Amino acid sequence: MRSIFINHQYVSEDAAKISVFDRGFLFADAIYEITPVIEGKLIDFDGHFTRLKRSLGELDMGLPMEREALLDIHRQLIRRNNIKEGLVYLQITRGVADRDFAFPPEQTEQTIVAFTQQKTLINNPAAVGGIKIITLADLRWGRCDIKTVQLLCASLGKMEAKTHGADDAWLLADGYVTEGTSNNAYIVNGDGVIITRNLSHRILGGITRKAVLKCAAELDMKVEERPFSPEEAKQAHEAFCTSATTFVMPVVEIDGHKIGTGTPGPVAKSLRKIYISESLKSAI
Amino acid sequence: MRSIFINHQYVSEDAAKISVFDRGFLFADAIYEITPVIEGKLIDFDGHFTRLKRSLGELDMGLPMEREALLDIHRQLIRRNNIKEGLVYLQITRGVADRDFAFPPEQTEQTIVAFTQQKTLINNPAAVGGIKIITLADLRWGRCDIKTVQLLCASLGKMEAKTHGADDAWLLADGYVTEGTSNNAYIVNGDGVIITRNLSHRILGGITRKAVLKCAAELDMKVEERPFSPEEAKQAHEAFCTSATTFVMPVVEIDGHKIGTGTPGPVAKSLRKIYISESLKSAI
Repeated sequence: MRSIFINHQYVSEDAAKISVFDRGFLFADAIYEITPVIEGKLIDFDGHFTRLKRSLGELDMGLPMEREALLDIHRQLIRRNNIKEGLVYLQITRGVADRDFAFPPEQTEQTIVAFTQQKTLINNPAAVGGIKIITLADLRWGRCDIKTVQLLCASLGKMEAKTHGADDAWLLADGYVTEGTSNNAYIVNGDGVIITRNLSHRILGGITRKAVLKCAAELDMKVEERPFSPEEAKQAHEAFCTSATTFVMPVVEIDGHKIGTGTPGPVAKSLRKIYISESLKSAI
Repeated sequence: MRSIFINHQYVSEDAAKISVFDRGFLFADAIYEITPVIEGKLIDFDGHFTRLKRSLGELDMGLPMEREALLDIHRQLIRRNNIKEGLVYLQITRGVADRDFAFPPEQTEQTIVAFTQQKTLINNPAAVGGIKIITLADLRWGRCDIKTVQLLCASLGKMEAKTHGADDAWLLADGYVTEGTSNNAYIVNGDGVIITRNLSHRILGGITRKAVLKCAAELDMKVEERPFSPEEAKQAHEAFCTSATTFVMPVVEIDGHKIGTGTPGPVAKSLRKIYISESLKSAI
């Protein structure tokens, strides 16, 4: 049974409980981060920590714990649960208070929950064949740049994809792809240009997105950060997604239409390889 | 200390805990209802029960308990906590499972939480002077007709209103009022016509809205269900909101602009009175 961190202590999974009055439970008033683990080490911990601080700030929530203390919790969980490959999930809520839309007093203690999941990341079989996606209306709220637990739309989207025999969904707003249900979306056109939506309130600024775009620049690949339509995606030579735990994931089919040769393309494959090797070098 | 219902038992407030793996906590994958209590009796329990079933259905969640069992829990909580006036809060989640966007197996036991709050409803002092509201962008997701716990936008809106010295906010989409942060919005024009936004995915189909519109019809008041703009609202003779626990609440100021005489108007006052007396007659 996993060891779970909750409010200053490590407890077993069946004892990891929070109050029903936690604002994370009653109002989705909570922020989360997922940091991948390879070879027992954290990938881009500081990238995730920086985004965590930003998300908390956007909701007028404080950071309940400094970097060193949070890093220690991540490492302890990896050790206690013997995680070689997988992730550490961290959630911070505004704390426990009787139900009221108005925030509780500022001194209210925030809730901190962290746990691990064991997962095959590097040799993820899905990356070999690539994944199939469908497109769905993006019904999410207007601040997708904040990593809140308001994840119903993403969850419903994954289930809708499953129903259609696909692996995931890309979301559409005003006729353009915003991002995947839990990943950023990319296409590669005939000139080898990587196209991915520009950062805004519409999408999450992916930590993996940032790192992968840096890899692309180092490889002298051209990148355009702008919206693209499903029609443009269907004409693309390649497509892929990025996220903390799938790294670079080739997309081989969109709405039943084969992308390029219908197999993972060279850009996605090389970016995946380079991202993993760069990440390992800087893992802590 | 209150008695709380959680997963088939009544426990004290400090023992009312759920797993950190509850999907209500990790994904906001949960539905809620709030049923008002006057004179120790439930107002429109069946209206709230009907909407609960609808919301659960829209998220492909089952109803974990039949009407009679849920009614019994509501009544037990009222009795145990000696509630004369206030509310019963009920939340149902998709249950506990290791974190995954995909739904857990169908046989996963749903989580049921219910608790009470004591509140002055009939003699709510805010109804005497009326409330001040500001308008804010409606950033909520595209399915506000489903009563989920994705309530961050509503919570942030209430806080923003407070910061501006107001009591609440009305939300604007494409230049028109959708509804309040946790209530439906109405204006009354110079011809005495009540205008409130038509039902759609944009707003919650208020149980109190339905009852109040019925009262209005019985009083031969004219009602137009259509969007209205903040400009039209500022020209109105009256404005008000409705919700389960505020009933009919007069609005006397919008974005610093006095509505009508700047005091609760006759339409809002008579609807409040009639709604309360009708509700008491049918309370169970």
